[in-house]
Amino acid sequence: MFDFKYYTPTKVVFGKNTESQVAELVKEFGGTKLLIHYGGGSVVRSGLLKRVTDTLDAAGISYVTLGGAVPNPHLGLVYEGIELCKKENVDFLLAVGGGSAIDSAKAIGYGVANEGEVWDFYDYKRKATGCLPLGVILTIAATGSEMSDSSVITKEEGLVKRGYSSDYSRPRFAIMNPELTMTLPDYQTACGCTDIMMHTMERYFTQGGNMEITDALAEGLLRTVKKNALILRDNPKDYNARAEVMWAGSLAHNGLTGCGNDGGDWMTHKLEHELGGMYDVAHGAGLAAVWGSWARYVYKDCLDRFKKFALNVMEVEDKGTDEEIAIAGIEAMEDFYRSINMPTNLRELGVKATDEDLVKMAKKCAIGVGGQMGSAKLLDEAAMLEIYRASM
Amino acid sequence: MFDFKYYTPTKVVFGKNTESQVAELVKEFGGTKLLIHYGGGSVVRSGLLKRVTDTLDAAGISYVTLGGAVPNPHLGLVYEGIELCKKENVDFLLAVGGGSAIDSAKAIGYGVANEGEVWDFYDYKRKATGCLPLGVILTIAATGSEMSDSSVITKEEGLVKRGYSSDYSRPRFAIMNPELTMTLPDYQTACGCTDIMMHTMERYFTQGGNMEITDALAEGLLRTVKKNALILRDNPKDYNARAEVMWAGSLAHNGLTGCGNDGGDWMTHKLEHELGGMYDVAHGAGLAAVWGSWARYVYKDCLDRFKKFALNVMEVEDKGTDEEIAIAGIEAMEDFYRSINMPTNLRELGVKATDEDLVKMAKKCAIGVGGQMGSAKLLDEAAMLEIYRASM
Repeated sequence: MFDFKYYTPTKVVFGKNTESQVAELVKEFGGTKLLIHYGGGSVVRSGLLKRVTDTLDAAGISYVTLGGAVPNPHLGLVYEGIELCKKENVDFLLAVGGGSAIDSAKAIGYGVANEGEVWDFYDYKRKATGCLPLGVILTIAATGSEMSDSSVITKEEGLVKRGYSSDYSRPRFAIMNPELTMTLPDYQTACGCTDIMMHTMERYFTQGGNMEITDALAEGLLRTVKKNALILRDNPKDYNARAEVMWAGSLAHNGLTGCGNDGGDWMTHKLEHELGGMYDVAHGAGLAAVWGSWARYVYKDCLDRFKKFALNVMEVEDKGTDEEIAIAGIEAMEDFYRSINMPTNLRELGVKATDEDLVKMAKKCAIGVGGQMGSAKLLDEAAMLEIYRASM
Repeated sequence: MFDFKYYTPTKVVFGKNTESQVAELVKEFGGTKLLIHYGGGSVVRSGLLKRVTDTLDAAGISYVTLGGAVPNPHLGLVYEGIELCKKENVDFLLAVGGGSAIDSAKAIGYGVANEGEVWDFYDYKRKATGCLPLGVILTIAATGSEMSDSSVITKEEGLVKRGYSSDYSRPRFAIMNPELTMTLPDYQTACGCTDIMMHTMERYFTQGGNMEITDALAEGLLRTVKKNALILRDNPKDYNARAEVMWAGSLAHNGLTGCGNDGGDWMTHKLEHELGGMYDVAHGAGLAAVWGSWARYVYKDCLDRFKKFALNVMEVEDKGTDEEIAIAGIEAMEDFYRSINMPTNLRELGVKATDEDLVKMAKKCAIGVGGQMGSAKLLDEAAMLEIYRASM
């Protein structure tokens, strides 16, 4: 096992109608002038934004608003937010939405708290020395950004999608009301469940350094999401299932399920990032579409972990060779993806890529990870291309 | 399930030689003048205290020291610490040791940050409005105080043992080096494993409000501690087992294993507190000594949970009636306690109590909990007495 740091300072307030506590939480963490950042119109249409601003008005907290965060959030909007914050002397960010609004708010926070070009952080050129404090009202269970140190931004020029992680951006508080996720389209719910599971699976498939307790927590989390994703497929209004998935989403990406390991594999995410950058696909669906091809390419190099996953998460029968059990686990995972209407290849994802496109994506992906990356198996550009081709 | 808050701001730095990072962590959290609080001589004899003070000296951080924290830490020493902090203008507390040193430091922190009598907080008379910031170098895996909001202090007059919980006292950082726990006597190690499991079991045996993900995490944690406690019985120097137990100790009591439930049962702890107050027994051993009698008294009122515990934690065979499975789980837990040389009744604990003593303890326990308490089953003074009698 490896040494580790664990730092999750976010105060989570979880349950029905918890958004009514937003003003006291903002005050507790010292906010006096807010930028409320949100995504599409659903936050407006549902009345959530008005409830939030009414609560802030009543508490005498002033704010400006900025909507328009989109999936794979764009750098242009980040610039706009930074300018607005500076002009209005904003001292606290409130993201209302899912990962897009939160990630975009984190990038705005870096831009306000640091001089110079904010893209530098996402382009690995320098490190942030701070971030404007941030609170979250979560409306989509998926990215885990509400407790995580990471954010992913897409630069429009060249459609470059990059992530940056630092503890400065961990939200001060996260309001989580499972009811707010009930109106999500089924496809988005399934994408969220996929993303949540992948955050833990990326940390699970490693070449050692694993702790038994971390594995036990990870496997328990994965089984819970798997079960409740199926409940939500059939009954999207099930409060308990919404709550299980929402809390799992935070725990899957706050660091808990990676304690003691080598940092994780993360190649499925990197392969998807190129898809997301070029085709603007839903992140969760993109992950599902490439995972199976990745898994089949790497499992022999990480056989113990794939076997453990098959037995303890997918609960396949313990018979046959280790390889047979590992493959049965991968197949069961793909069956699960199909059962919640997630794609298991690029065609099903709706990506009509030519082989030239795949070559281009593999090249960009390799550049993005600095040449090669992966823990279950180290992948270079040629390997990435092979996985993309297998996922057609 | 119930709404919940989850707040664990402690920065954990886990692994070999992590105590060498103490000065930078103190600086990160703003400490300039420290009170280093520790317990018995082992922290001195092992050279740990000198390593810590050398590191602080090299970083130019000044400090005063106060040793003498004992199991069931006493209020008298807390007063001494408060006076010393005020006299020396201490702005940060560093506890080096186990739960006794940490709990005692938390009480000192309340005493410095609040006017008036510090015992008031433990006596339910008023609430603290702050606590001096606190860091921890952990040397015993047991109480979870290194990430928790709680502390337990014993008032010498009348031997009254009481706990107080508030987020203000959650440590800013916790340095956890499993190697520092390797020299613990076997009995202390077993007591620690018992305490850790009990922190999660207190949260597990409730009358509803449970989340599946919380159960999955709790069960995984319990299985991990159970397995590694046996490894440590046979090989106290096993680094991985020390690490598994140490990390489990923090997760068992930072709130994670209670998310969504009704707050937990906690009657085993309350019953033990009276024992600990009157006889100065080791906390973990006291818990083991009363748990079985408590469990047999309450299990019929909480049958689903006892059955789930039997199957998923103690891994007993799924055959017979629910009651038979529940009893098999209780017996398996008692067998486990015996296997790590923990007592399963007061005699084995070495407590020679007369029936008059038991009556007195039950009375004090009932007063301590405000009349009656318990989630698995609500217990009054008569019930407490019956459990004490059954545990003789």
